[in-house]
Amino acid sequence: MSEASPEERVYVEDLREVWAVLTEEDRLAGWRRLPAEERDDFFLELDTSDQAALVLSLPVKERRLWVRLLPPDDLADVLQTVEPSERHALMELLDQPTAREISALLAYEEDAAGGLMNPRFARVRRDSTVEEAVTYLRKQAQDHFARMHYAYVLDAGQRLVGVVSFRELFAASTGSIVADVMEKDVVSVPETMDQEQVATLFAKYGFVALPVVDAAGVMRGVVSADDVVDVVKEEATEDIQKLGGMEALEDPYLRTTFASLFKKRAGWLAVLFMGEMLTATAMAKYESEIASAVVLAVFIPLIISSGGNSGSQATTLVIRAMALEEVRPRDWWRVARREVFMGLALGGVLAAFGAVRVLAWQHAFHSYGEHAELLAVTIGVALIGVVTWGTVVGSMLPFVLRALRLDPASASAPLVATLVDVLGIVIYFNVAAMMLGGSLL
Amino acid sequence: MSEASPEERVYVEDLREVWAVLTEEDRLAGWRRLPAEERDDFFLELDTSDQAALVLSLPVKERRLWVRLLPPDDLADVLQTVEPSERHALMELLDQPTAREISALLAYEEDAAGGLMNPRFARVRRDSTVEEAVTYLRKQAQDHFARMHYAYVLDAGQRLVGVVSFRELFAASTGSIVADVMEKDVVSVPETMDQEQVATLFAKYGFVALPVVDAAGVMRGVVSADDVVDVVKEEATEDIQKLGGMEALEDPYLRTTFASLFKKRAGWLAVLFMGEMLTATAMAKYESEIASAVVLAVFIPLIISSGGNSGSQATTLVIRAMALEEVRPRDWWRVARREVFMGLALGGVLAAFGAVRVLAWQHAFHSYGEHAELLAVTIGVALIGVVTWGTVVGSMLPFVLRALRLDPASASAPLVATLVDVLGIVIYFNVAAMMLGGSLL
Repeated sequence: MSEASPEERVYVEDLREVWAVLTEEDRLAGWRRLPAEERDDFFLELDTSDQAALVLSLPVKERRLWVRLLPPDDLADVLQTVEPSERHALMELLDQPTAREISALLAYEEDAAGGLMNPRFARVRRDSTVEEAVTYLRKQAQDHFARMHYAYVLDAGQRLVGVVSFRELFAASTGSIVADVMEKDVVSVPETMDQEQVATLFAKYGFVALPVVDAAGVMRGVVSADDVVDVVKEEATEDIQKLGGMEALEDPYLRTTFASLFKKRAGWLAVLFMGEMLTATAMAKYESEIASAVVLAVFIPLIISSGGNSGSQATTLVIRAMALEEVRPRDWWRVARREVFMGLALGGVLAAFGAVRVLAWQHAFHSYGEHAELLAVTIGVALIGVVTWGTVVGSMLPFVLRALRLDPASASAPLVATLVDVLGIVIYFNVAAMMLGGSLL
Repeated sequence: MSEASPEERVYVEDLREVWAVLTEEDRLAGWRRLPAEERDDFFLELDTSDQAALVLSLPVKERRLWVRLLPPDDLADVLQTVEPSERHALMELLDQPTAREISALLAYEEDAAGGLMNPRFARVRRDSTVEEAVTYLRKQAQDHFARMHYAYVLDAGQRLVGVVSFRELFAASTGSIVADVMEKDVVSVPETMDQEQVATLFAKYGFVALPVVDAAGVMRGVVSADDVVDVVKEEATEDIQKLGGMEALEDPYLRTTFASLFKKRAGWLAVLFMGEMLTATAMAKYESEIASAVVLAVFIPLIISSGGNSGSQATTLVIRAMALEEVRPRDWWRVARREVFMGLALGGVLAAFGAVRVLAWQHAFHSYGEHAELLAVTIGVALIGVVTWGTVVGSMLPFVLRALRLDPASASAPLVATLVDVLGIVIYFNVAAMMLGGSLL
C-alpha cells in the first residue's frame, strides 16, 4: 500500500472509464495505482459484486482494512454475494460488535427492509434538553453518521417514539427539550416489509430516510433514499427481464458468464417451446382444411401474432400497474371488463386492416379466387376473436399467478403469446369452417 | 374550510384506502372532511396528477392557499400537467418571487435535472465563521428548508465551491470557518443532464441530495434522492410499457381513459400488423410447397414463435443494460458476437426438442409418413437458423435505433417478433426446399 510513484499513477476518471472491460487482475493493479486518497472513495463507489471481487483478489492480510471501511449494510451485501467459506473468513476480520451487527443483518431476507437498513443510527432521549442531545451527538464518532440527518427518539424499551432532524435540533431554541421539537407522528417501516413496498413509501412521502422497527416497535435501523434508488432499479430490471421471457440475471449483462446467461434463457425458451408444440397439435387437426384451402395457412402468422401482440400489451400494463400498486388483486373485474371492450375495439381496427388487405390483393392480383369476400370476412372475424382473447389472457394471467402466490411478472409477453397462439389457431379455423363451409371448405 | 363536525369526520386511512376508486367529486368531499391538521399532509402526499385535479376542483378563491403550500418543484410539476389556460390562472395566485422561480423551472425540459430540482437551498459563504453560518441559517424561514440537510458554499459569483451538511456545521468546533469544514470536492449535476443519468449518479454515490449547476458553475438548485426514486420508477414504467409494444401511458392504468388507452395501444398494434402482413406475402410465395406438403404448415407457428421468443429475450436484455449504462453503443460488437453463439446454442437445444417431437409422433401415430426423419432434420435446422436470427435481430435492433437517435426501448418484444417472423418463414421454407426437395417437395 505504498504511495504510487508518479510514472505509475493512474487517474481515477480513466480507471472508471475502462473498468467494465478490465480483467480482475487489471482492476486490482489499476486500483492499487490510484493516489491513496482516491482509493477509498473509488472502492466505496463500486457496486456490491465489484467490491466483493476486489476484496477477494487482495492478499488475505490486506483485506481487513477494506472490509472495515464498508458501512454495515454494504458489507452485509458483499458477504451475501461471496461463497459461504469466504464469508466466514471475511467475518473473522471484523471486531466483535460489528460481526454481531452483520450477523443480525444477514439473518434478514435479502428483499426485506431489514436487509436494506443500516443498523447504526443516532438515538436521543425524549426528555433530554436540546443542549444535552446536541452535546451527546457531537461526541459520537463522526464517521458513524457521516451521511445521516435525523436523530431518533427512543423510550427506555428502545421503542421509537419520535424523530428530529439534526437541523431542527440545532435550530431549536435554548431550554427546550427533545420532546418539544420532535415529530411524534413517525412514518416507520416494519423490518419484514418487502423492499418494493419500502420504495413505494419513499416515493409517496418524499423522505430521505425512514426508520425500521420490529414487531414490538423497537427501532432496528435506518433505510435511506439512496439505497432505495438501487432497489427500484434492481426490481425494475428483474421485472423487465422476466417480461422478456427469461429468468432475471444476477449480474450486469456483459459480466454474466455465457453459461449462466444460457441457463437463464434456455429454461424458459424450452418451456415456451413445449407450450408452442401444442400449436403443431392444433394445426394437425386442421390439415384437411389447409389441404383444401392452402390460402388459410397463409394468414396464420398474421392472425396469431396479432393475438400475441395485444396480449403482450395487456400483460405488460397489468404487471407494471401491480408492481406500482396501482392495480390490486380485487380490481380484477374492473380490468377484465375494460380489457374485453379494449380487445373488441383493437380487434375491430385490425379486422378492418386485414379485410382491406385481402380485398386489395384480390383486386390487384386476384390472389384469392371467387371467395375473396368471404375470406376477408373470415380474417376480420378471426382477428376480432383472437385479439380479444389475447387481451383477456394477457390481462388476467397476472391476477391468476398472483392468486396462486406466484410472481405476476412471470406472465411474460412470450408466455402470453404462447397461450394465445394455440387457442388463436382453434378460433381461426372454427371461424373459417363457419364462414367458408360449403364454399372454400 | 370550516372544521368538520364529528359525525362528518373522515379518517385519513379510510380516505387513502378508497381514493383510487373515488370520483373527483367524492375525492374533494372526502378530503374536505378530513381533520384540518391532516388535510395539508394528505394533499402533499398525493401524486402530481391528483394534486392538479384536486386544486382545479376547488372554487377559485380557495386555490391560492393550496398552490402556495406546494414546494416549487412539485408546483412546477402540477402546472406542467394542467391546460395552459389553467396554468396561467394558477400562476397568478403566486407572489412575484415564487412566480419567477416557477417560470424558470418550467423553462427546463421535463426530463432534465433542472426540471427536477428545488430552486431553494441553504447557501453560506466560505469565509463565514461556523457561528455566523449557523446564526444565518437559523434565521431563514423553517419551512423553506424543511427537508434539507446540506448548506451549499457559494463564491461571490454564486458559483458552487463547497458543501457542508447541517450536522457537520453544528458539530464543528467553535472558531472554525466554513471553508475548514466544507467538502471541496463536490459532486454536482449539470442542469441539462437527463434525469436517468441523475438517477445513476445517486445510485452510484449514495447521496441524499445533489446540487445542480449551470454551464458557468452557478448553483441553480438541489435534487433530492426521494425525487429520484420517483424518476427511476417512472422511467422503468415507460421502458416496460414500450417493451410491451405500445406507447408509454402518462397516468396510472386505471386512471387512463379508455380513449387514451386505445390510442396508445392501437397505433403500435396497427404498425405491427402492417409489418406482420409481410408474413402473408412471404407465405403466399410458398403456397405450392404447402399444397404438396401440408405438414410443413403445421410447424410454422412453432418455428416462428421460437424466433420471436429468443429475440424478445435478447432485445429485453440489451435495452435494459443500455438504460443502466452497462452496455454502451461501442459494445455492439461484443454483444453481437456473444448473441450469435447464444442463438446457435439456444437454437440447438430447441432443434433437439423439435426433432424428438417429430420422431416421437411418427413413432406413436405415424403422423408424418415415410419422410419423417427428413422432416425432423428440416425442423431442427430451421429452428437453429430462426432462433439465431431472432437473437441477432433482437440484440442489434436497440443499437441500430440508438445510432439513428431513436429510443432503443422502442425495440419492443412484439416489434422484434414481427421482424423475425417474416425472415423466419423464408428461412424455414428454404431449409425445407433443400432438405425435402425430391422427397416431400
